Amino acid sequence: MSFQIHIGTNVRQSPFFDATVADGVKSFSVYNHMYIPGHFGDPDAEYDRLLNGVVMWDVAAQRQVELIGPDAEALAQILTPRDLTGLKIGQGRYVPICDHDGLMINDPVLLKLADDRIWLSVADSDLHLWAAAIAAERGLNVTVSEPDVSPLAIQGPKATDVAVTLFGNRVKELRPFAFFETLLDDIPMVLARSGWSKQGGFELYLTDGRKGTALWQRVKEAGSPFGIGPGAPNDIERIESGLISYGADMRRQALPADPFEMGFGKMVSLDTHDFIGRAALRRRFDAGVTRQRVGFVVEGACVSSLQRPVVLEQGERVMGMATDLVYSNRVGASIGVGIAETDVTEQSEGLTIALPQGDFPVRLANLPFI
Amino acid sequence: MSFQIHIGTNVRQSPFFDATVADGVKSFSVYNHMYIPGHFGDPDAEYDRLLNGVVMWDVAAQRQVELIGPDAEALAQILTPRDLTGLKIGQGRYVPICDHDGLMINDPVLLKLADDRIWLSVADSDLHLWAAAIAAERGLNVTVSEPDVSPLAIQGPKATDVAVTLFGNRVKELRPFAFFETLLDDIPMVLARSGWSKQGGFELYLTDGRKGTALWQRVKEAGSPFGIGPGAPNDIERIESGLISYGADMRRQALPADPFEMGFGKMVSLDTHDFIGRAALRRRFDAGVTRQRVGFVVEGACVSSLQRPVVLEQGERVMGMATDLVYSNRVGASIGVGIAETDVTEQSEGLTIALPQGDFPVRLANLPFI
Repeated sequence: MSFQIHIGTNVRQSPFFDATVADGVKSFSVYNHMYIPGHFGDPDAEYDRLLNGVVMWDVAAQRQVELIGPDAEALAQILTPRDLTGLKIGQGRYVPICDHDGLMINDPVLLKLADDRIWLSVADSDLHLWAAAIAAERGLNVTVSEPDVSPLAIQGPKATDVAVTLFGNRVKELRPFAFFETLLDDIPMVLARSGWSKQGGFELYLTDGRKGTALWQRVKEAGSPFGIGPGAPNDIERIESGLISYGADMRRQALPADPFEMGFGKMVSLDTHDFIGRAALRRRFDAGVTRQRVGFVVEGACVSSLQRPVVLEQGERVMGMATDLVYSNRVGASIGVGIAETDVTEQSEGLTIALPQGDFPVRLANLPFI
Repeated sequence: MSFQIHIGTNVRQSPFFDATVADGVKSFSVYNHMYIPGHFGDPDAEYDRLLNGVVMWDVAAQRQVELIGPDAEALAQILTPRDLTGLKIGQGRYVPICDHDGLMINDPVLLKLADDRIWLSVADSDLHLWAAAIAAERGLNVTVSEPDVSPLAIQGPKATDVAVTLFGNRVKELRPFAFFETLLDDIPMVLARSGWSKQGGFELYLTDGRKGTALWQRVKEAGSPFGIGPGAPNDIERIESGLISYGADMRRQALPADPFEMGFGKMVSLDTHDFIGRAALRRRFDAGVTRQRVGFVVEGACVSSLQRPVVLEQGERVMGMATDLVYSNRVGASIGVGIAETDVTEQSEGLTIALPQGDFPVRLANLPFI
């Protein structure tokens, strides 16, 4: 199946949109009401560069929710079960965010820019509305907005070479999720060691949307000696690496899940601070978790992608959902992720996946696959 | 420019997805994290059917936010500036929804199913998160969820003939936005006289997602004698008719606007009830509205669509934004909508639009165009 995407004013264009079009983008998806590139015509080469070289991704659709004001940190701490104590300026942290039922509604990276200024680099849901509602209803002294900030990611083993070319040796000292504000000529940004892959790299959070094409060209030129090419967040690598995709692996409205089920139990700090969903998560914890995130290998089928979630079954009984599936050359099999009853994770004999091609046996596997 | 859309598990499929694929859908967009058809290969014929015959649209992406419980009505009234007094079971109403700053975050149709059960049929933002946050923070006795409800629209002058064939003569008695719950064979739904066009018609809110293909086929068969065909919400007709598109004409994060600016002043009831944004809207009203929604005709250019908002200028001065633009055969010109300073609406001489093709003179026009 192949369909066109409608390009209209109802979906936003990234500051890098024109540059990705000039560089031959072939497909888009929509994320946070913004077009995000899918691929540039050669997915195998794009995957290979991510693993062995360096790629550049327009991930402007990973929007920022900015909290500014004396209560910025207080609001951030109310929003997440994760204890933010000790987080310093210039550090980032992955933070699950739950609603009052303890179910996840987003899983951003939090960046502390100042004591009174925080960014939440959000997955695909309107966390802006959520944070603004909580701030106003609790009378907190904080302004919630979505500022002009658009990340461009460079990922892969040679990403550091590109970053050193652009920003100098100081980038080598950045620890994971750490960042600093900087200028590249006259292009303002926040440079972070982060990105949605396990291959290492950086995210350049452009803070002036008028300079998207200029930044894209600068990165492309600096990356040229290292064979950089355009690409996009990669489904195969993310499943091999066990990365979560809010929207695919869970979504509040469609596939609700709590942080325990998604494997984030260590980030839920029930006893240190007050946060939204705390009472519900305590009840869930006390009752015992009955589902959990799983990885699996499909046996006897060579499936390259899943277009919608399908059920995992044991005989007649539905035991879970497969939420994504790819063919991995490195594993040499079709591998997937999903959520399943803990019964299954203890005794997975006879587990099958209901693919459009038919039912196939499934073997559970530890995450990450690689 | 033509691009493919990535079909993956991170975006939901409508219950009518398979049926639209079987009927030859050619393009999609994404709305409320769900694929929504763009066109079926012959936009002119689809427009013609909407105006002179009857079309069927998969608008399942117009998701429902359901409020259930003793405080359902109280929550609905807190969410909207519009006074809901007198709204009866079986009636619907268009309701602007604002944040605490008085800026619009959605503009759903509200359906009152029971005293303790309300649907908000939402535009493209996660109003579910907003409503859930407000309900929980205020301690209201109401459950907020997104249930299994997926509208299929039939629109056009012959839509009534199709509805009579399916449901009998009682559909003729439905007033605009009125609805009733019913079964079509074993397919459960809410049938409403409504839809996002000015050509008249109905929306069939399917309440069992497993029966999407069955409902699509039933409507297709009943519509066959009247020349029904598949289509999608139509940008040309909506601009000719002056319909608002949240996401295109305004969006909280990208193009913020209040209800006065969007022409919904009569729906803002500052003195009858408490609601979110009331204080801000009173201040805005007292200060005087300085921008307003406008329609315009582009002179000397034949432009068939706008792919991103562009500025309206008077000399060097930016006076507003054009948020959508189409070529209308009925008007015989390129017509658009946008938002502009009230200065401009009083004295529009020398107004130009900054199109990719160059600057062109613009003449303001009353909405609707037709």
